[in-house]
Amino acid sequence: MEPRKKTARVTVKRHGERGRYDRDTVDAILAEGLVAHVGYLWQGQPFVIPTLYARIDDTIYFHGALANRMLDALAEGAPVCVTVTLLDGLVMARSHYNHSANYRSVVVLGRPREVTDPVEKARSLEALVDQVAPGRWADARQPNETESKVTRVIAVPMEEVSAKVRSGPPIDDEADLGLPVWAGVVPLRTVALDPVEAPGLDPGLRRPEYLTPYRRPGW
Amino acid sequence: MEPRKKTARVTVKRHGERGRYDRDTVDAILAEGLVAHVGYLWQGQPFVIPTLYARIDDTIYFHGALANRMLDALAEGAPVCVTVTLLDGLVMARSHYNHSANYRSVVVLGRPREVTDPVEKARSLEALVDQVAPGRWADARQPNETESKVTRVIAVPMEEVSAKVRSGPPIDDEADLGLPVWAGVVPLRTVALDPVEAPGLDPGLRRPEYLTPYRRPGW
Repeated sequence: MEPRKKTARVTVKRHGERGRYDRDTVDAILAEGLVAHVGYLWQGQPFVIPTLYARIDDTIYFHGALANRMLDALAEGAPVCVTVTLLDGLVMARSHYNHSANYRSVVVLGRPREVTDPVEKARSLEALVDQVAPGRWADARQPNETESKVTRVIAVPMEEVSAKVRSGPPIDDEADLGLPVWAGVVPLRTVALDPVEAPGLDPGLRRPEYLTPYRRPGW
Repeated sequence: MEPRKKTARVTVKRHGERGRYDRDTVDAILAEGLVAHVGYLWQGQPFVIPTLYARIDDTIYFHGALANRMLDALAEGAPVCVTVTLLDGLVMARSHYNHSANYRSVVVLGRPREVTDPVEKARSLEALVDQVAPGRWADARQPNETESKVTRVIAVPMEEVSAKVRSGPPIDDEADLGLPVWAGVVPLRTVALDPVEAPGLDPGLRRPEYLTPYRRPGW
């Protein structure tokens, strides 16, 4: 299948005006996010599991340990859904009915495969570490043979993709504008506090530049 | 089914030491969270959709508009998964293999039902608004008959529940402790910025106390 289709089943229907289908919007959300929620079916029951992820071109990658039910289910190639959500604010209208949230989310549908090619596997592990902190891959100790063997990587091709974005102030009914009710937006941000050194860390080691301060795309 | 069972399929297997099954841990995570990721099956495809939620006793509630595929799928009573994740920090070890994240997550499995009883519906809508900002329900305009009619509420009984928690510093292999690699944790927090008033808001209206400042349980 061609990557990145706007198919009927990923087209935003409720609040269609919030649907976004361009690559820049989708990629910016995926670059800023840290946690994906992966939905898969296991013995007739949907499961949703949070995981770190990375994107390379039109593929999303996760990793995990050899003994992992989610990776087993994903390696089988049954369809999955990968959702990344960034919550930007709480939207308080004069009426409860018009309360909302500002957010940016991406939904990806695709059929996963296990990554077995050593070159792709090495590249995806690097992307997974650098999604968390660009530059970190070059700094820390690389996986040895045993570690590589017990680390499984799953690739989900971005076959069907859409984003949904709400921003801006509350939209109240005309008739409610005169009500004596405070209305507006509480912006929310994820921020990094000062890094905490591991106990026993050599005091001669300088904190890396990518943590001074820690920032993400979009921050 | 009895609520809140620790069944085999919600028992944490990978990193079993991170599993938590007590009510206090689960409820604290659900009280702090704002967004749940709901997984459901629709025409053979798992979907994962972010949504606001609230908990009352052993039930999780969402709401949405009448024309909403997720609510249709949920109202049918097919099993769903509700996952709430709080990301607390990025754990950087000397080796890539021991990199991790600090987080608290809850996974709930249950068979949903649509809330039709007017008393339960009113109570759940109040809980949904007060999950976002306690005190807000009393302040804003209550739903009128039309608004109530087009707002559907779904209840998911917390039939099977578990939490998973990782905290603390990286755990490195003994052999890596001497490597010249910075190791530690980057703590992450969600914070609220100063509320932004809606355009045209009556300047005589005072910002409510629950937004001065905005806080959540656990913040």
